[in-house]
Amino acid sequence: LVSWVKMTNLMPDPSRRDLLMRQEVSRRTGGRVALTAAEQRLDARLHRLKEQEMSAAQFPPALHFFKAKPLIQRSSIFKLLQKMPKGAALHIHSSSLVGVDWLVENVTYRPHCYVCFTWDNSVRFVFSSRHPFPRWDCFYWQLLETLRAKLKDSAGFDNSLKQHLTLVTEDPDGAYPSQDAVWEKFEKAFIAAAGLITHAPVLRDYYYKGLEELHHDNVMYLELRSGLSRTYELDGTIHDKAWTLKTFQEVTKKFTADHPDFLGARVIVSVHRALSVSEVKAAVKEAIQLQKEFPDVVAGFDLVGREDSGRTLWYFREALSLPAELGATLPYFFHAGETDTEGTDVDQNILDALLFNTTRIGHGYALAHHPLAKELSRESSVAVELCPISNQVLKLVSDLRNHPAAVLMSEGHPMVISSDDPSLFGTTGLSYDFYQAFVGIGGLKSNLGTLKELAVNSISYSSLPAHLKNRAQVMWQNKWDTFIADNA
Amino acid sequence: LVSWVKMTNLMPDPSRRDLLMRQEVSRRTGGRVALTAAEQRLDARLHRLKEQEMSAAQFPPALHFFKAKPLIQRSSIFKLLQKMPKGAALHIHSSSLVGVDWLVENVTYRPHCYVCFTWDNSVRFVFSSRHPFPRWDCFYWQLLETLRAKLKDSAGFDNSLKQHLTLVTEDPDGAYPSQDAVWEKFEKAFIAAAGLITHAPVLRDYYYKGLEELHHDNVMYLELRSGLSRTYELDGTIHDKAWTLKTFQEVTKKFTADHPDFLGARVIVSVHRALSVSEVKAAVKEAIQLQKEFPDVVAGFDLVGREDSGRTLWYFREALSLPAELGATLPYFFHAGETDTEGTDVDQNILDALLFNTTRIGHGYALAHHPLAKELSRESSVAVELCPISNQVLKLVSDLRNHPAAVLMSEGHPMVISSDDPSLFGTTGLSYDFYQAFVGIGGLKSNLGTLKELAVNSISYSSLPAHLKNRAQVMWQNKWDTFIADNA
Ligand SMILES: [Zn+2]
Ligand SMILES: [Zn+2]
Repeated sequence: LVSWVKMTNLMPDPSRRDLLMRQEVSRRTGGRVALTAAEQRLDARLHRLKEQEMSAAQFPPALHFFKAKPLIQRSSIFKLLQKMPKGAALHIHSSSLVGVDWLVENVTYRPHCYVCFTWDNSVRFVFSSRHPFPRWDCFYWQLLETLRAKLKDSAGFDNSLKQHLTLVTEDPDGAYPSQDAVWEKFEKAFIAAAGLITHAPVLRDYYYKGLEELHHDNVMYLELRSGLSRTYELDGTIHDKAWTLKTFQEVTKKFTADHPDFLGARVIVSVHRALSVSEVKAAVKEAIQLQKEFPDVVAGFDLVGREDSGRTLWYFREALSLPAELGATLPYFFHAGETDTEGTDVDQNILDALLFNTTRIGHGYALAHHPLAKELSRESSVAVELCPISNQVLKLVSDLRNHPAAVLMSEGHPMVISSDDPSLFGTTGLSYDFYQAFVGIGGLKSNLGTLKELAVNSISYSSLPAHLKNRAQVMWQNKWDTFIADNA
Repeated sequence: LVSWVKMTNLMPDPSRRDLLMRQEVSRRTGGRVALTAAEQRLDARLHRLKEQEMSAAQFPPALHFFKAKPLIQRSSIFKLLQKMPKGAALHIHSSSLVGVDWLVENVTYRPHCYVCFTWDNSVRFVFSSRHPFPRWDCFYWQLLETLRAKLKDSAGFDNSLKQHLTLVTEDPDGAYPSQDAVWEKFEKAFIAAAGLITHAPVLRDYYYKGLEELHHDNVMYLELRSGLSRTYELDGTIHDKAWTLKTFQEVTKKFTADHPDFLGARVIVSVHRALSVSEVKAAVKEAIQLQKEFPDVVAGFDLVGREDSGRTLWYFREALSLPAELGATLPYFFHAGETDTEGTDVDQNILDALLFNTTRIGHGYALAHHPLAKELSRESSVAVELCPISNQVLKLVSDLRNHPAAVLMSEGHPMVISSDDPSLFGTTGLSYDFYQAFVGIGGLKSNLGTLKELAVNSISYSSLPAHLKNRAQVMWQNKWDTFIADNA
């Protein structure tokens, strides 16, 4: 039959053609979402705006985000996305939660803040009631208050501090010629920020400020990956991980009391994949214990750090099967497939994350190249946490139209949008990443139904218990109805 | 069940894990090819070499081809690919078949060759027995022989001529900041070469030389897309399309007589998608007629030119359904989906190509984003003609690991490898594109079975009648056996 059909050149039946086109669209993320009349009006407006942005001389998703950011800020689509209730942010790291402007302009101006410039062009901070001792990486600590008093160009100085705390630069291609180079700066910025954030009084304000930024961007719930680093007081007292979790719990409680339309936040305890098996075993046991102590706060466990230069999930298999051995449960939220080296041991992480019953997959950049893992994750409703700007800045892809998530979106694969490390990439909230997913990766066929499904997904794929999911959905729907009424 | 499974953190059964990994590999292009002991030895060697190249400081598929080319030429994998019998080249355009070195160093040194430098920094050539008349785009023709006699730096001059005939440059990012810019140069180079190639005596040598380059790269059969431009003699006589087809037929016959291990060549008649519907109607009718006159030569019909700025297949639907109306048959070999603008009318070309029963899809760059079209093309065995270097140079993708064909390869989608416009991209034969597909797009999991399947595909998805396909397979298998014996 096929070959007979091929030998004819009949005009395709236009109604069959329409049907096929509709069928293909219906498979997409949001392709089966029924839109109300008001939603259809807003959708038509979004479609026109998207056509305009796609035909402009410079198409933001095709540029490096650091160059695209001012264009995106002027975009009418972006402005709508800022107003849109986006649901939950399910993939953000605690050390990169708050914009560097606040860190420098607020935190480094607090009393007792010391700075040290290291030999490898990095920076360290510490709060201390007396002059800090020299450390292996820091011989000469200066009190910032004293240093600033001597400086003429304090704005320039503050700017240089910010440069140490973020990847943002005017010349990303020159500054980061390779993945190695950008990851090196990435790790440096993390270490630089640590001295500020792990100061106990700062942590409290920092968390609050982070929730504020999300709330301001119309995000209503957060799952934060955190290593729960020990925090310190001015006198050198050190707090343990339970203290950090308790602080997190208290600050969240205060924030939701101040902002009743914010649902809350939970923590995914994370350890670095550079650790040894026995260290990860200890961390898994500790996470089980912390989850028992803070069942409302601790959502589960993850391994973080660059996959390509790190140890695989399979390497840690003994540690990761500990909970079952101990008769405990510990949900996993593994980073997996944040790589473009296909077919290596690291590239196996996605399948192993699924075999270890991960609840979601962080990034899953490589998932589209793994048809079987893709089916498994779809069947077991394991959503991918898509962080487009992170993938671009960390040099997995330059033009976001080529992001493999375009394949996943065309198939309606379970997916949520997140921002990974907002302060390092110079974003705030989720709107920038929503813009890239909607305009760049989704193309012209992704529509208001896509946005709606992505927002709803962020609640349904969260770690919230059923009753809180229901509450979140109701809260979100109210916000959504207002958003539609205001903008349709 | 799923949620119960998720609440346990059992160690995954290693044998089930192995099974899943093998199942996933078996879906890949070449994943079910059984390798002989000798093939397995060569495969192991290829695997080691690939691991080395993937961990080197510079990974050629991640670089622009113009910068990667010298690295690829030094690659041991590339040297093996050059020796490997690759089967057929199914997607090459006649105006870009032969390297520019030969065009400049041989053709432009022939007598009666005139050159003209245009106001828009391009060049025109014409052979003429007397001084050519000024044309709208060319006021001042100079005889190359006379001009060269006056020049001091003839090597530099020849080099400048070559620059006009190819896209190759040391600074591709600077020279071609956008798709528009690179396509503009693309069209200019085509026009520049036309005056040389359409000179009747040159065309004969040019075809022969083109077949020689393919044969030298261990390619044994060609399907050439050609507009069958009218050719001219020194005295101004113009030949029609039938003359060109006849010349092609004769040259092919001579070449196969001189090289009995070369199977032959066929032509896919191509017209530009800038034409009107009535012009394409006339072209379709003419192609039907030419196929009747030259059934062994004419394989079918295609529309060429940049899709993003051109008319869609659906726009030409009346013309494309003409054959059936006329009771004739005309196989189609449509370029479709050579675009990264998702969801536009142009992005619809792939589905329409399938609805018009295309025999293969040229490029199909966007196919991975069209799940339904992907299924249709798989079910009806419509192979994608993958031309990785073309897609990179024409700025659809920068790092070839992000080429969407990685998805297609992971699913074993029907596929062949070709070179599109070798002289414009500075390639010769298929080995460069095989390198990119094998090392860059295929990743570490693609192996000798992948290469074997791709080569076999090129014969089975060709337009050859069954008896010639069989002959080609036997010829290819003999070459392959020798290749394995020599290199295992
Ligand atoms: Zn992350
Ligand atoms: Zn082509």
